[in-house]
Amino acid sequence: MAFGWIEEQARARRRAGLVRTLRPRPADSPLLDLASNDYLGLARHPEITRSAAEAARVWGAGATGSRLVTGTTELHTTLEGELAAFCGFEAALVFATGYAANLAAVTALAPHGSLLVSDAGNHASLIDGCRLARGTTQVVAHADPDAVRKALGAHRGPAVLVSDTVFSVDGDAAPLGRLAEAARESGAGLVLDDAHGLGVLGEGGRGAPQGAGIAGAPDVVVTATLSKSLGSQGGVVLGPEAVIAHLVNAARTFIFDTGLAPAAAGAALAALRLLRREPERAARAREVAATLYERLTAEGFEAVRPDAAVVSVRAPSPERAVRWAEECRAAGLAVGCFRPPSVPDGVSRLRLTARADLTDAELRRAVEVIRATRP
Amino acid sequence: MAFGWIEEQARARRRAGLVRTLRPRPADSPLLDLASNDYLGLARHPEITRSAAEAARVWGAGATGSRLVTGTTELHTTLEGELAAFCGFEAALVFATGYAANLAAVTALAPHGSLLVSDAGNHASLIDGCRLARGTTQVVAHADPDAVRKALGAHRGPAVLVSDTVFSVDGDAAPLGRLAEAARESGAGLVLDDAHGLGVLGEGGRGAPQGAGIAGAPDVVVTATLSKSLGSQGGVVLGPEAVIAHLVNAARTFIFDTGLAPAAAGAALAALRLLRREPERAARAREVAATLYERLTAEGFEAVRPDAAVVSVRAPSPERAVRWAEECRAAGLAVGCFRPPSVPDGVSRLRLTARADLTDAELRRAVEVIRATRP
Ligand SMILES: Cc1ncc(COP(=O)(O)O)c(C=O)c1O
Ligand SMILES: Cc1ncc(COP(=O)(O)O)c(C=O)c1O
Repeated sequence: MAFGWIEEQARARRRAGLVRTLRPRPADSPLLDLASNDYLGLARHPEITRSAAEAARVWGAGATGSRLVTGTTELHTTLEGELAAFCGFEAALVFATGYAANLAAVTALAPHGSLLVSDAGNHASLIDGCRLARGTTQVVAHADPDAVRKALGAHRGPAVLVSDTVFSVDGDAAPLGRLAEAARESGAGLVLDDAHGLGVLGEGGRGAPQGAGIAGAPDVVVTATLSKSLGSQGGVVLGPEAVIAHLVNAARTFIFDTGLAPAAAGAALAALRLLRREPERAARAREVAATLYERLTAEGFEAVRPDAAVVSVRAPSPERAVRWAEECRAAGLAVGCFRPPSVPDGVSRLRLTARADLTDAELRRAVEVIRATRP
Repeated sequence: MAFGWIEEQARARRRAGLVRTLRPRPADSPLLDLASNDYLGLARHPEITRSAAEAARVWGAGATGSRLVTGTTELHTTLEGELAAFCGFEAALVFATGYAANLAAVTALAPHGSLLVSDAGNHASLIDGCRLARGTTQVVAHADPDAVRKALGAHRGPAVLVSDTVFSVDGDAAPLGRLAEAARESGAGLVLDDAHGLGVLGEGGRGAPQGAGIAGAPDVVVTATLSKSLGSQGGVVLGPEAVIAHLVNAARTFIFDTGLAPAAAGAALAALRLLRREPERAARAREVAATLYERLTAEGFEAVRPDAAVVSVRAPSPERAVRWAEECRAAGLAVGCFRPPSVPDGVSRLRLTARADLTDAELRRAVEVIRATRP
């Protein structure tokens, strides 16, 4: 049997209690959601969903081709212009997913002979980008400017430092200022994934690079997703004009992928405009995360102090993490559960996400459920 | 300058006349479209765009998380069930893009020690999948069962043959029956990308594998996109239950990517249902392609006999291909222009796509413009 070997892996997974299955949610789920990445509570905001609907009506349900052929509408260009202006960059390029944006930025900026210095805690899409790139990758210790300095020191030729700005599992922020310094000492560029920073960090949600004062610098390229704070789907690369033009010509996930669906572009654009009008949403998401963290640590839980909107709470083991998340769900609370093999350090945790639109009563209820189900 | 090396590449591109730039289209483009992959003319069909709009309203603008966390809605599951049933497979898994579906299927089905036998004309996303996979890749001559047989013959351990069913550049079909035979002789599995077959080939558009009688076989895994015949965005992997469950547990572009936006899922589902109701659309797309081919070759053009809905017409050089496409556009006709470096064989061509909703008058106009602008 061609795929017979799969059964063996499946058995091992069952024995270890690590089988993942999908749990479809209804449109009107009664669960209190602390699991999604809808940090600003915009995915179901009527203004955003109306814009998605309107874009589908005006532009069609799909982009119908590669961005280089028929897949670029004026809507895409408008979105790119407003994203670049908001985040403080010369130019922007929108992709079908954040994953594709990361593959594009990393591969196109690491030619043959170049060095990629990659943080050990980076997201899978950055890791896959490094694997696909023609350059050589060196993985360095998590959030460690000295390790970056050392890795870059010995190299000649083009080099980039590749890092999340906010790490997706623990929600801790990278030391952007010091990383930029380390990179600049040896003339390396920076490719920063702001998936969890955009909409939450920086002035009015302009993102972590803006907050760190490095947005728009000629050696800084930032990627982000339209699927978290902006409540939609898609990805974006932000950077100097010349870098963006280079991606148009060289990035395989740009050239060989169908453009982002108009509905997703329209929704992201509406979310961006709403965020510009209501910049306090960004601060509110951070405040909710801080409150969650304080109340949970006050209950004796071990958690990572949140730098953005993700709160990571340690669980004693993978099995108990899974059971804990199950019991939260049974009590009406949806939480994320991260465990091996999808965490780099083998540590299992509940992953809670703050949303700007959570009320204090909801926060209290969440903490109460987590406490009551404690393993 | 960190990204200074980009300028050198840009200069080389300018010298060679190979700079690509984006050309945003308005919502009401006056161009006759023979460039999009909207083979069935569904992207702007009111039934489809209404379903996109309705899905955004009911389910939100984004899926809000990984399919494993909050990103699976009942809409995704319904779409998966209907896609599997339509194409004749046990199970289906929907992805944010076809590109992601290909990365998933190829990487998850080629473990360490396995062999990937990959057709020389495969799509970029299959190639990237092979590059990312743990197994070893052997590229074989285009559409050549004997080459496949030879490559597989020497290998022990898991192996997969990876091929497009319809090749995106020339629109020629892979010899699926004979490829399956070659793979089966050595117990290898098949991973077939039906991006350009779904909706066009097979009974009522059920896809090339269904047409070749291999849909639903235990050693056949098929990927497809929701962004061409189905007029939306997204991708799908179809296969045996056990393979799909394996992807849920092992495919990085499934686990670490936000789920497909509800609007895109809703649009694809509506398109699928419409195609079931109007199966003649598939035959009509093929007929339009055949007519285009006949009229163009009657005018003395060198074209590839279309096996699906893509008609590839040879151009004398990259520069003249670009100019030809420009002149078509100036005369009101949008055509694709494929040229190095995005073609595997260095041959430049116009790429015309048939749409089921093109009228005979439109076809005549298209042929007339192509003739009048002949280089
Ligand atoms: C840090 C990070 N980067 C990139 C992505 C991928 O973005 P998308 O889901 O839009 O493909 C994610 C999560 O999905 C993420 O957490
Ligand atoms: C053969 C083939 N496979 C896969 C893809 C990728 O699909 P998607 O655009 O949905 O990501 C494409 C084109 O876009 C294609 O032509």
